[in-house]
Amino acid sequence: MTATSPRLKHEVKDLALAPLGRQRIEWAGREMPVLRQIRDRFAQEKPFAGLRLVACAHITTETAHLAIALKAGGADAVLIASNPLSTQDDVAASLVLDHEIPVFAQKGEDNATYNRHVQIALDHRPNIIIDDGSDVVATLVQERQNQIADLIGTTEETTTGIVRLRAMFKDGVLTFPAVNVNDADTKHFFDNRYGTGQSTLDGIIRATNILLAGKNVVVVGYGWCGKGTALRARGMGANVIVTEIDPIKAIEAVMDGFRVLPMAEAAPQGDIFITVTGNKHVVRGEHFDVMKDGAIVCNSGHFDLELDLKYLAANAKEIKEVRPFTEEYKLTNGKSVVVLGQGRLINLAAAEGHPSAVMDMSFANQALACEYLVKNKGKLAPGLHSIPVEVDQEIARLKLQAMGIYIDSLTPEQIEYINSWTSGT
Amino acid sequence: MTATSPRLKHEVKDLALAPLGRQRIEWAGREMPVLRQIRDRFAQEKPFAGLRLVACAHITTETAHLAIALKAGGADAVLIASNPLSTQDDVAASLVLDHEIPVFAQKGEDNATYNRHVQIALDHRPNIIIDDGSDVVATLVQERQNQIADLIGTTEETTTGIVRLRAMFKDGVLTFPAVNVNDADTKHFFDNRYGTGQSTLDGIIRATNILLAGKNVVVVGYGWCGKGTALRARGMGANVIVTEIDPIKAIEAVMDGFRVLPMAEAAPQGDIFITVTGNKHVVRGEHFDVMKDGAIVCNSGHFDLELDLKYLAANAKEIKEVRPFTEEYKLTNGKSVVVLGQGRLINLAAAEGHPSAVMDMSFANQALACEYLVKNKGKLAPGLHSIPVEVDQEIARLKLQAMGIYIDSLTPEQIEYINSWTSGT
Amino acid sequence: MTATSPRLKHEVKDLALAPLGRQRIEWAGREMPVLRQIRDRFAQEKPFAGLRLVACAHITTETAHLAIALKAGGADAVLIASNPLSTQDDVAASLVLDHEIPVFAQKGEDNATYNRHVQIALDHRPNIIIDDGSDVVATLVQERQNQIADLIGTTEETTTGIVRLRAMFKDGVLTFPAVNVNDADTKHFFDNRYGTGQSTLDGIIRATNILLAGKNVVVVGYGWCGKGTALRARGMGANVIVTEIDPIKAIEAVMDGFRVLPMAEAAPQGDIFITVTGNKHVVRGEHFDVMKDGAIVCNSGHFDLELDLKYLAANAKEIKEVRPFTEEYKLTNGKSVVVLGQGRLINLAAAEGHPSAVMDMSFANQALACEYLVKNKGKLAPGLHSIPVEVDQEIARLKLQAMGIYIDSLTPEQIEYINSWTSGT
Amino acid sequence: MTATSPRLKHEVKDLALAPLGRQRIEWAGREMPVLRQIRDRFAQEKPFAGLRLVACAHITTETAHLAIALKAGGADAVLIASNPLSTQDDVAASLVLDHEIPVFAQKGEDNATYNRHVQIALDHRPNIIIDDGSDVVATLVQERQNQIADLIGTTEETTTGIVRLRAMFKDGVLTFPAVNVNDADTKHFFDNRYGTGQSTLDGIIRATNILLAGKNVVVVGYGWCGKGTALRARGMGANVIVTEIDPIKAIEAVMDGFRVLPMAEAAPQGDIFITVTGNKHVVRGEHFDVMKDGAIVCNSGHFDLELDLKYLAANAKEIKEVRPFTEEYKLTNGKSVVVLGQGRLINLAAAEGHPSAVMDMSFANQALACEYLVKNKGKLAPGLHSIPVEVDQEIARLKLQAMGIYIDSLTPEQIEYINSWTSGT
Repeated sequence: MTATSPRLKHEVKDLALAPLGRQRIEWAGREMPVLRQIRDRFAQEKPFAGLRLVACAHITTETAHLAIALKAGGADAVLIASNPLSTQDDVAASLVLDHEIPVFAQKGEDNATYNRHVQIALDHRPNIIIDDGSDVVATLVQERQNQIADLIGTTEETTTGIVRLRAMFKDGVLTFPAVNVNDADTKHFFDNRYGTGQSTLDGIIRATNILLAGKNVVVVGYGWCGKGTALRARGMGANVIVTEIDPIKAIEAVMDGFRVLPMAEAAPQGDIFITVTGNKHVVRGEHFDVMKDGAIVCNSGHFDLELDLKYLAANAKEIKEVRPFTEEYKLTNGKSVVVLGQGRLINLAAAEGHPSAVMDMSFANQALACEYLVKNKGKLAPGLHSIPVEVDQEIARLKLQAMGIYIDSLTPEQIEYINSWTSGT
Repeated sequence: MTATSPRLKHEVKDLALAPLGRQRIEWAGREMPVLRQIRDRFAQEKPFAGLRLVACAHITTETAHLAIALKAGGADAVLIASNPLSTQDDVAASLVLDHEIPVFAQKGEDNATYNRHVQIALDHRPNIIIDDGSDVVATLVQERQNQIADLIGTTEETTTGIVRLRAMFKDGVLTFPAVNVNDADTKHFFDNRYGTGQSTLDGIIRATNILLAGKNVVVVGYGWCGKGTALRARGMGANVIVTEIDPIKAIEAVMDGFRVLPMAEAAPQGDIFITVTGNKHVVRGEHFDVMKDGAIVCNSGHFDLELDLKYLAANAKEIKEVRPFTEEYKLTNGKSVVVLGQGRLINLAAAEGHPSAVMDMSFANQALACEYLVKNKGKLAPGLHSIPVEVDQEIARLKLQAMGIYIDSLTPEQIEYINSWTSGT
Repeated sequence: MTATSPRLKHEVKDLALAPLGRQRIEWAGREMPVLRQIRDRFAQEKPFAGLRLVACAHITTETAHLAIALKAGGADAVLIASNPLSTQDDVAASLVLDHEIPVFAQKGEDNATYNRHVQIALDHRPNIIIDDGSDVVATLVQERQNQIADLIGTTEETTTGIVRLRAMFKDGVLTFPAVNVNDADTKHFFDNRYGTGQSTLDGIIRATNILLAGKNVVVVGYGWCGKGTALRARGMGANVIVTEIDPIKAIEAVMDGFRVLPMAEAAPQGDIFITVTGNKHVVRGEHFDVMKDGAIVCNSGHFDLELDLKYLAANAKEIKEVRPFTEEYKLTNGKSVVVLGQGRLINLAAAEGHPSAVMDMSFANQALACEYLVKNKGKLAPGLHSIPVEVDQEIARLKLQAMGIYIDSLTPEQIEYINSWTSGT
Repeated sequence: MTATSPRLKHEVKDLALAPLGRQRIEWAGREMPVLRQIRDRFAQEKPFAGLRLVACAHITTETAHLAIALKAGGADAVLIASNPLSTQDDVAASLVLDHEIPVFAQKGEDNATYNRHVQIALDHRPNIIIDDGSDVVATLVQERQNQIADLIGTTEETTTGIVRLRAMFKDGVLTFPAVNVNDADTKHFFDNRYGTGQSTLDGIIRATNILLAGKNVVVVGYGWCGKGTALRARGMGANVIVTEIDPIKAIEAVMDGFRVLPMAEAAPQGDIFITVTGNKHVVRGEHFDVMKDGAIVCNSGHFDLELDLKYLAANAKEIKEVRPFTEEYKLTNGKSVVVLGQGRLINLAAAEGHPSAVMDMSFANQALACEYLVKNKGKLAPGLHSIPVEVDQEIARLKLQAMGIYIDSLTPEQIEYINSWTSGT
């Protein structure tokens, strides 16, 4: 199953899939005008010339565009999957065959393979790591302290990864700069909210083909991803219940018109459960036990541990695939629970991940964050750094322009007004 | 490509697909409790014993349940596709292999095959015709007047078919009873609105994977299907523009918060166009000419002539498949138009059609409409007949019950009140 | 309190309020372009010359425009209030003083006065009755059979009135034609849905100034008024629960994303209850007993008996006005229930009734229905008649035009297509 | 018009209004459980004993509860209006008469009076200033440097005030601590968004009684207030257009489904314009000139200069009140523009300001911010300080509790998980 081209090492499912991948990558490019402009500039300026880069990401058509832009900028890049189920094998094939970028990723790879790929990535001795969930960085810190000297810095894509990096920093092991791409407004406002919102429902519908209108959808977590998911579920006619641990987010959900319940009360009412918390076992035994017969559960948070699937497996008489990416656990209590995408990110497992239009901004942030690390090599303190506001604003400006939308600017009189404080009522 | 079993004639793509079809049919059954109850009763009462029945329908998992229910009721049924792109080949295979129901339908069949299947259906000399778009009935009336004596009546599923039946009645050729299933509240309120709404967007997303949020979506027609489509498109964050020819529907769209424009003004603003009118060439040359480069057009109305694809083909330098079910027409004017699903029902071409939960009610109406024709054989005048209100109410009642939702009933005092007129202010 | 001008009999609160009324009538006229065009035509054609007309209606700025149009058409019209709390005293004063139209209506009049006004209206010996809730017609039928010969016909504005007229017809006492204005699409689609929706919430907010976001709002009844109310309550951030007795409407509410519960279950959850059923005691003792302390109840249906206020009064230790139109019933069970507008139409009691833009269409229907009765004098059978479709369409067309909105028309090819049935797949 | 009680100095419109004010204050208290708990604690702990406090605020029923809580805590407080049109005279009367709190505020007071009241407030030699728009602090800094020594600190309620304080800090004149109440999540998430959203529409509807469904509503600014206003306008059926100067907020509006246009393009399309920017002349001559005849403009931002009313006045042939708080400017170009509430905060001018439920949290923040200043007297650096996160969370927790809503807490296993970084895919 592992093919080797004469030109470069890789582990992709089947190079013959490249033509479909190429076609889909090209299609995605239409909605990624910002990254395209950055790629064109990189091709001229070569900011990454002579640098080794590792990108751990969902291998999708959008990631392909990021990889191509980095390579255009001179990077010697290696790609690995950030999740066992999120690789699009046709895209991986095209990257290898059409763009000569080494990719180590196959949809459905097991955890051992996944971990081996992380090691291959680190063997590349990266100067820059683009991470998604912080697995590469965590491994580096734990197992390859000697390589830290090579590292200019890392960038992190997800809320989950940021939480881990904060914990590393608290533990004193984050000894290099890390750019928090997730907190750029042009990233989390759009990717986490509108991207996760649409693609999560898309994944659920492709997996199940069920009608959402009139269903009780329980959204577990009301962060940016949860907000997007709840909004879109309501937009499809579902009756949405939110669960939270944060009182401010909980009131926000209430005032947005959703019901807010503790999970113990939501569990027997839900038809579909979607976890987006970044935390562990937010739906667990005590909840599965009281669900309706046939309740559907899935996850759209980064890791596959938000649902306690071990409990389910331990209490199942039978586990049966009823549709692709849809497994029914027949429980010893006589009821069944339907799990989608093995509890992995449902939008990537059963659908195609976030649409290109949002990833355009997210990956523009990634590309510019890498450039920022290089330009400020040696100047940034260890720990987390935000994307500079100007970068964020510039991405938004380019995006609007590409969408053909024009906005106002401040008049000189208005600029003066907001800088003064003396005129009042 | 045509397989023949020892037991029965059929034309399905591949009997080997039956296991997947069986699995998907079984899954759909979970959301079809009303039809299941009807099937159980039919199995006992055998209302169709000795009768030949033809069903022309989209061959989906839901249609499978209708066919199974009719067969359980004793019908000698033959199934044909109502649309060249809407057949699910695995379902067709399972119906033949697992249920011994003859099916003549293959996804992607050409028009000649389609018409040949209509002839095969009529060769069955049906006593009852379940039609979807009125092609079988129209052919019967035009070519097989001698078979009309066999016919107890017909039922029609779609708005489009009803329009054709009305025209036939006006022309004096509808000389037998036809039950208007489409106008049952439990059909068009749900199937046309919530079914079309969700599945049309599903088809577009599967075909293109584009973000709907922030896109200008032009919904052509604000009937029940248009209302559902506009509502769900807004629910996904799109900015919806509606076009109409009926002033009352137009004001309704305005007051629902949508922009209403003539197509000539909508055409240059739209990113995605969806036709749901039942009429011909509602998007045509003059509109294609002024669209944005890369505009996406698709149809969710019954026939594939709502978009004037002949104009597009005649003005294209190149037609290229850019993703499955997604073709780019590079026009001589330098811009391109992207057509989804060849202008056929996008929800069936690129997705799986209406979700089971709404088809449960639609096909419960079909099953009971057939029974009604049989029970009233010889008593119904030629022309269109409505589903009796009690049938409609009963379907709703069974559906609510199955959903676990309880409602109030009138108290004796209230019944007295609404039947009296003497008490006022 | 009863003033008499030298010129005409009337009973209005205070003629000195006329200037404010005149100003508000003029303002409302901006949003009533359709009725304005009809008035201009009536002024030329005088369709009501020599005819006596009684209009029983909410005396608002919009009704003023209807009365002015009828008078312009030559009618000898008398106006009475259709509800004790819905009269705008400034408008009544202006109609008398500025337009010389006799009005018998005062906000807050008691039932005896209300009934006396009905008698005054009938003393006018009307040829045409415009009714709103059918009180005038019911009184005529019960007490003034001898005047029926004078009557050309009646028009009815409300769902409630139509229900009463149907009951009269069944009892054989509706021996003259009655035009069902309520069922015109340009009436109930807009007035009942968007008019009731906005004005009901407006009434609640003016009465209480409470935040709707995050409140559980129970909408009792999901007819057109209920749909509008539920939609707008959700639009303000409320979590809406619907109660129904009709299974089809109940599923519709479910698929629209609302919770549907029996009132017994909704009662302990609601923060605000709004009745829009046309039926009696839909919220009653058993429900009041289990409500939260401080629950707010109001009615937006025609009559004030949807809430069982007698039960509340009988079980209250104290009834106290806590804000204008807001009374707190301190119950013997220790909790309190807050009743708005004495259970009368809250949009008219605490706010200004439906906005002019919808009443423009409703009253255009009324004006044209009266003209229709006159033009078809002697030709219409006793019983209910619909507004002719052409009239309905024409009103919509005039309205769109006035809103500056243009729509498409069918091409000759399309007209041919929808009239033919031979071309299919 | 100025009354003087034997007991304390004040300037309120009419002490006879006190009973209505008392009733309305009591009613508002039902929705303010958090502030009530704080008041009860203050009454025991007396954190402000011996301190002089000035509160510059909209004198509403909610502000009354804040004042009462501060007084309960021992403060010697003086209240002045923060806006000439926002005072509720009945509330002012009740505060003086029932609570013995000196109030200097009258609805409709002119600018000279307003400024005189600011001087009276400063004559009180405050230790703490609660400001709303920063007028008192700006005056202190410009005219009473000698009193700064008395000052422990100030708190600021509004976005506008924070902008001014930032400018002061940049200019080096903010030499004392200022607590940014506006940026507390429990303040701006709720007050600015849901409070402004509902109350702005309420003000527009009370002023005009027009139907919002189907109207083009232009929301100028997509900050928290703009987001709330746009959301609720859409919720009422309006078609919303947003204008912005910030590219990130602009894309957010686009993805939320709104049209984003430069004001020059929005101006001729809008039926109603609402400014919520905090900036000057965002709607000005060039925009008024191209508006539709009869366009309605209003402001819900802090100061009355967002609309360039001077331009309007200079170009008007006639200015006429057409309803309370509604003035028509007949322009020399033949068209008219309708201005609501003289361009002052429309929710306070024509309605009752933010509902109590949101002010409960905002003013809980104010009360606790004052306590925080006192507790940290001498320890806080000059400049802006945030509300501590724990305070913010605690307010949310109390609010949820009072609403009867329960949420989940982290399990020990989950706490461990989010603090660790070693476990990954």
